[in-house]
Amino acid sequence: MTLSGRSIIGFRRGSDTSRTFTARDPVSGQALDPEFASAGSDEIEQAVRLSAQAFEAYGRLPGREKGKLLRRIASNLENIAAVVVERASRETALPRARLEGETARTCNQLRLFAGVVEEGSWLMARIDRPDPERKPAAKPDIRSMLRPLGPVVVFAASNFPLAFSVAGGDTASALASGNPVIVKAHPAHPGTSELVGQAIGRAVQDCDLPEGVFSLLFDGGNHVGTALVKHPLVKAGGFTGSRAAGITLMQMAAARPEPIPFFAEMSSTNPVFILPGALEEKAEQIAAGLHSSFTLGGGQFCTKPGMVFIPEGEAAGRFSTLLGERLRPPASFHLLTEAIRSSYKSGIESRRKKSGLKALAEFSPDSDSAVGAAIFMTDAKAFLDDPQLGIEIFGPVTLLVRHSSRDELFEIARTLEGHLTATIHGTEEDLERFAELIRVLENKVGRLVFNGFPTGVEVGHATVHGGPFPATSDGRTTSVGSLAIYRFCRPLCYQGFPPAVLPPELKDTNPLGIWRMVDGQLTKEPVTVGLEVKGQAQ
Amino acid sequence: MTLSGRSIIGFRRGSDTSRTFTARDPVSGQALDPEFASAGSDEIEQAVRLSAQAFEAYGRLPGREKGKLLRRIASNLENIAAVVVERASRETALPRARLEGETARTCNQLRLFAGVVEEGSWLMARIDRPDPERKPAAKPDIRSMLRPLGPVVVFAASNFPLAFSVAGGDTASALASGNPVIVKAHPAHPGTSELVGQAIGRAVQDCDLPEGVFSLLFDGGNHVGTALVKHPLVKAGGFTGSRAAGITLMQMAAARPEPIPFFAEMSSTNPVFILPGALEEKAEQIAAGLHSSFTLGGGQFCTKPGMVFIPEGEAAGRFSTLLGERLRPPASFHLLTEAIRSSYKSGIESRRKKSGLKALAEFSPDSDSAVGAAIFMTDAKAFLDDPQLGIEIFGPVTLLVRHSSRDELFEIARTLEGHLTATIHGTEEDLERFAELIRVLENKVGRLVFNGFPTGVEVGHATVHGGPFPATSDGRTTSVGSLAIYRFCRPLCYQGFPPAVLPPELKDTNPLGIWRMVDGQLTKEPVTVGLEVKGQAQ
Repeated sequence: MTLSGRSIIGFRRGSDTSRTFTARDPVSGQALDPEFASAGSDEIEQAVRLSAQAFEAYGRLPGREKGKLLRRIASNLENIAAVVVERASRETALPRARLEGETARTCNQLRLFAGVVEEGSWLMARIDRPDPERKPAAKPDIRSMLRPLGPVVVFAASNFPLAFSVAGGDTASALASGNPVIVKAHPAHPGTSELVGQAIGRAVQDCDLPEGVFSLLFDGGNHVGTALVKHPLVKAGGFTGSRAAGITLMQMAAARPEPIPFFAEMSSTNPVFILPGALEEKAEQIAAGLHSSFTLGGGQFCTKPGMVFIPEGEAAGRFSTLLGERLRPPASFHLLTEAIRSSYKSGIESRRKKSGLKALAEFSPDSDSAVGAAIFMTDAKAFLDDPQLGIEIFGPVTLLVRHSSRDELFEIARTLEGHLTATIHGTEEDLERFAELIRVLENKVGRLVFNGFPTGVEVGHATVHGGPFPATSDGRTTSVGSLAIYRFCRPLCYQGFPPAVLPPELKDTNPLGIWRMVDGQLTKEPVTVGLEVKGQAQ
Repeated sequence: MTLSGRSIIGFRRGSDTSRTFTARDPVSGQALDPEFASAGSDEIEQAVRLSAQAFEAYGRLPGREKGKLLRRIASNLENIAAVVVERASRETALPRARLEGETARTCNQLRLFAGVVEEGSWLMARIDRPDPERKPAAKPDIRSMLRPLGPVVVFAASNFPLAFSVAGGDTASALASGNPVIVKAHPAHPGTSELVGQAIGRAVQDCDLPEGVFSLLFDGGNHVGTALVKHPLVKAGGFTGSRAAGITLMQMAAARPEPIPFFAEMSSTNPVFILPGALEEKAEQIAAGLHSSFTLGGGQFCTKPGMVFIPEGEAAGRFSTLLGERLRPPASFHLLTEAIRSSYKSGIESRRKKSGLKALAEFSPDSDSAVGAAIFMTDAKAFLDDPQLGIEIFGPVTLLVRHSSRDELFEIARTLEGHLTATIHGTEEDLERFAELIRVLENKVGRLVFNGFPTGVEVGHATVHGGPFPATSDGRTTSVGSLAIYRFCRPLCYQGFPPAVLPPELKDTNPLGIWRMVDGQLTKEPVTVGLEVKGQAQ
């Protein structure tokens, strides 16, 4: 398990060492060996060309073959999990237990997509049978299914070095739908990235697939990412990161001579609404859960609850005290990168200076490299007057907002921008009284959580980890869960084609035994060949 | 059936008459009564506000209620079909039989979407059941389904005054998925638009739905369209028209502070590949079909075959002669608008001047208001050297391109930009020899046609009327067929919600009896309540 510090370009390695960078230990601040070479222009070009070549074969691979690749990536990753966790813990300062859990989640996610492509209903295979007798014109035989787009570029995230990185959800879903992937590694954890990239590369070899199915490019700057998004052979992109970077990339993708879909999961403050009954009855439990949730992973979760709305009054005072107490004894957090730490500190500084805000509790750790958690408090009027307060600060901080009326609560809810999640804590009576709140929030987010906390995203079939802009670039999608596969494909239909040249998914006999829609009805049955033959005979 | 010449704003009528325009008879060039008033800024604002208000109720309407509306629109339209066809024929110069067929198709399309929302599987309702015993953390109850986006603006097309206009596919699919619609009428057929708009408005009233579900705004210029695409309450758009207008609008939608999805179906030249065996065996039949197809509706179809690739040789000469003969006796065509006619004429003029092009047959009609059909011929080299030759000219013209080798054929196929369709004419032996051609074309278009012609788009479940840019703004979608419904919705998930507040589509008992995915398996069965209760109890 040695690290070469070189990009993985198909089955080859990068050699251009004109620009290099190193990872840093967030605790000590020290550089970690080895030096990583940023991919040069020739290497980028080579990776994209290999990817486009691989697409010709990989894009037509049957589901079970793609499933084999995904399962092999998972088992290869499990085989080196200890080494990966060791390196990731040095590069990210995240606890080992968390990184072990994240590795398991990443493997589960790969196997979830394997199951999806093996099962096959995701393809939306459809057959409209012909009717040569129809008047005024014969009805043709039309069959359609989803097809992949082509080379996909994936930008790995800093905060999930495994689950949203080299072998994360974007890569898994793009590979599942038949697209070769080029990952642009996150420079904060290049060693982890190389280890995972090696595991994927070996899986591609193990499965005898073309080398261009996967590449991993390093870069300490922006050159590689820009070149990939602008490359004419790249057909889509996935990104998880900051709003500023996400918007830059999505605009770049839209401004190409041939615009491409670009799925950026950006920023979210994940509003939490604690309704009166719940605040009264479960203050302690909610305060404990909220504290765990907004400080989890140093508050570096895209689903961190960054604003909490409570009705003012005695219960609010009690809740604030309970929450404040959670910050004692003080804990300190080593954030992922120097940039994140400095941005967190300036975010806290700017809130501290605002006149309408009160620091409810705030801990300043003594170490220079660590930060403390913070809670600010304000009222609905100040919140509504200052749109900055609704914007995400990445790190262990949240904002308590007291409102004085139902009208204020609804004004806040109605003026929210798009977020990944919204959470409601309530009793049965609360839900009856505030039923309309659910209706409002349904249009603001991708996931509604009831009596729970937004951090900890389940990887399943029903999961939606998306939301209206600016939570993501396209609120019609999710980046977690099996629905994420729909981002990287498009429907294609065949009219009047002889069975011999149709893909197996669309043949009369349904040789793959998948769910299909025949004349508008879901079925696994083969289609009647009689009509079929008539249709072909036209 | 009187025409007011005023915009339809919910159940009200526009009154701002500061800017007006009239329709013109394409044959006589004369203005048709009445004058139509372009909607003013206040009227646009009112239509959008009513639409956003209507969304609150309409966006949650059960499938069968939306189905009722769509069926009612269809029957209201059938009731006035004769009047509509009469007016449309004067505004477009299209033959009555075609307009009658288009009316029937429009009604079928509305009923297709009614069937889709009544059946319910399109919602992708999904339930991942909870597991409170799971380690290390309990698995929550997560349920998701597709939800509408909000007010949708639809830009009606000039060339299909019914099927791609006020009650066309964009309107039908947006209404089906639960979005209120504001149509910007095409100024070439405002009378037809008002009649159809009245039928929709009456249907909304007949079904006791909020007035903002539908509005129809007139405009002789660009003010209304621009204002609608930029309005913060508008959440998506659909468009059928020219590449220039489509790109302008899609860029406008992407440049909003909150970018919105904008589905533009733009331009397509619909390549036709006639393979050697078919050219030899079926020259006459293909020449006849091709002639009908490229002159159908005056060549004003987005699926018009505008370039035809044939292998050079004796058979090519015979085919060219046969095709040329089809233009005698000469026919003349009255194009839809003065702008289309002048653009067609300048397109023909520019081809006539190109040195590598030969006019195979060309008819210049004697009337000033009509145009003739034209066929140009060139070779593969000239075609590959001049990207302009691959761009659509709207009207009854096509281009025959002779290639001298298999390599040239594949070079042409590989360098094609995105189109709506590609057609292959071949024998069984051709298909074997040119199997790779299908593989190449699969990445270039939304629909592949074998031994047929691309005009005449079937409205079904398997239909794809889309294709990579610049055929459309987003090649992952279709604007015809039931798959078009997926453009105007997004997934939303509910985590840990009590059954009482879940939408009926996601309740344990499956009261609507729809197909759902439960723990990854498609089923119509209710979910086990036992687990459910445990899950809720967490």
